[in-house]
Amino acid sequence: MSATFTAEPSVAVIGTGAVGGYYGGRLAQHGREVHFLLRSDYAAVCKGGLSVSSPAGDFHLPPDQLRLYTNAAQMPQVDLVLVAIKTTANDFYEPLVSPLLKDNTAIITFQNGLGNEERLADLFGAERIMGCMAYTCINRIAPGKIHHVAHGFNHLGEFANKHPTRADKVAEIFRSSRLPCQVITDLPAGRWEKLAWNIPLNLSVLLDQMVDRILSTEMGVQVFREIAFEVLRIARSLGIALPDSLIDQHLQHAIQMGTYRTSMYVDREKQRPLEVEAIFGEPLRIAESQRISAPYLRTLYMLLKILDHPFKV
Amino acid sequence: MSATFTAEPSVAVIGTGAVGGYYGGRLAQHGREVHFLLRSDYAAVCKGGLSVSSPAGDFHLPPDQLRLYTNAAQMPQVDLVLVAIKTTANDFYEPLVSPLLKDNTAIITFQNGLGNEERLADLFGAERIMGCMAYTCINRIAPGKIHHVAHGFNHLGEFANKHPTRADKVAEIFRSSRLPCQVITDLPAGRWEKLAWNIPLNLSVLLDQMVDRILSTEMGVQVFREIAFEVLRIARSLGIALPDSLIDQHLQHAIQMGTYRTSMYVDREKQRPLEVEAIFGEPLRIAESQRISAPYLRTLYMLLKILDHPFKV
Repeated sequence: MSATFTAEPSVAVIGTGAVGGYYGGRLAQHGREVHFLLRSDYAAVCKGGLSVSSPAGDFHLPPDQLRLYTNAAQMPQVDLVLVAIKTTANDFYEPLVSPLLKDNTAIITFQNGLGNEERLADLFGAERIMGCMAYTCINRIAPGKIHHVAHGFNHLGEFANKHPTRADKVAEIFRSSRLPCQVITDLPAGRWEKLAWNIPLNLSVLLDQMVDRILSTEMGVQVFREIAFEVLRIARSLGIALPDSLIDQHLQHAIQMGTYRTSMYVDREKQRPLEVEAIFGEPLRIAESQRISAPYLRTLYMLLKILDHPFKV
Repeated sequence: MSATFTAEPSVAVIGTGAVGGYYGGRLAQHGREVHFLLRSDYAAVCKGGLSVSSPAGDFHLPPDQLRLYTNAAQMPQVDLVLVAIKTTANDFYEPLVSPLLKDNTAIITFQNGLGNEERLADLFGAERIMGCMAYTCINRIAPGKIHHVAHGFNHLGEFANKHPTRADKVAEIFRSSRLPCQVITDLPAGRWEKLAWNIPLNLSVLLDQMVDRILSTEMGVQVFREIAFEVLRIARSLGIALPDSLIDQHLQHAIQMGTYRTSMYVDREKQRPLEVEAIFGEPLRIAESQRISAPYLRTLYMLLKILDHPFKV
């Protein structure tokens, strides 16, 4: 890590959706230099800025306080890249991220599922990569308008564990920008802990039902638990010993979410590509290679793949 | 069977929805004495009669040619009772059917799933009971208006096999009323053959997608096949040897259905109770008692139970 990083790192947000807008917005609100890459919302944010409503405090960043781009090639090199695009766009990692890199630039992926760190590491070097598991309910309610609904803790981990202090420094920057953040030493465990959240939660996508509606039924709670337990069994086959108590913890958080729409739920509503491969496909392939029976995961994967198929009719 | 039956049996239709309206309507169109029990559509049919559009020929039965009732207790005893209510209303078999019975009245259930014949047999005697597996796409498009979309073959079987000629006679009456009908000697095999149709087809309910959309995807076809195969494996554990070729046959029929909405799909749309127990729950319990692994059936059952739960929020 370069010395510039410890002082006041410059940040690029790749993908200014709900997550990128909220996290980048919080950092900018607290005086960091943040460069935002946008696509569909560019014109709206240039005009109206970025508005965030949040239980941790509303704020508005006017356009003249924002650094906005539609093309990564026009962005400066930075100390810290926050990757917040959909995993369905991971084929674009190279053109989106490479222009931003100098020798010691760190890359943090906020994306869901498995395989993101690995693919970034292959492209840009393992030592740059960190993963952040964000347990935050955020919706983009209109272009440039973000609603932080609830929660907000983050687990940040190094991919290659070569930087004894980098994660702590990033976490400190996050925390001082009203982004609760805890450093974890075992990134794979963090990923599987998050999968035991994302996979049962995305029942809502398949059923086209809000999480609170699902969890208001006994069967919904039972299925949430059984799916989460299936995920833990796969993790355990890899030597990742997550405790059963995690399931109740996730369940309690899910119940608190109220009428929150998961990002994949919104994607289905808008007929956008679903993050099926990262969240369901990769874990399923691991289960199969480990010869762990995963009937829920397999069925959910296949059914979501049917939904995900581009409409022909 | 009484002699009256062979001559010109009188018929009662219990539940004049899509199936009851179409089958009863065809019989009435061809001069049979048909008594219809209605609920929500009574006033509309009293006023406008029964209209059927069908590739086998449209027809209209004006109110003065129809025998319409809202209360089974006011209906006459008949030779043949066609049961076409939802299985979710099976608790009402006794008050709906018993007023119609004389010594030799036969009862044919057109209902989907397992357990209907058994329950009718317990209430009214096994020797009365027949099952009809209707492979017919019919929608009730408005009160008193029925659209027969496609197909129409029927497999009719005796429950207790004590009547050497009764099923043949009923089939002949059906066929002479433009209702293709074939007698089968193995009713359980017919039921499981139909389940291998209903269970994969009702993916459309879970996914809130039309069958043609699902089957336009490779994954949709694969899942249809895998689910149907799972159903055949359960049947085989019971000694019911249905051939693998049945799956392609069902698949071809399903592809021909176009934009047809299954009855359970319509039930979900209208937030009515779903026939989950008869179509999914009963076969699943059999799979479990036979110790046959049925991961699709179990997952589909549990997810449909979540959907089926009365809305609380």
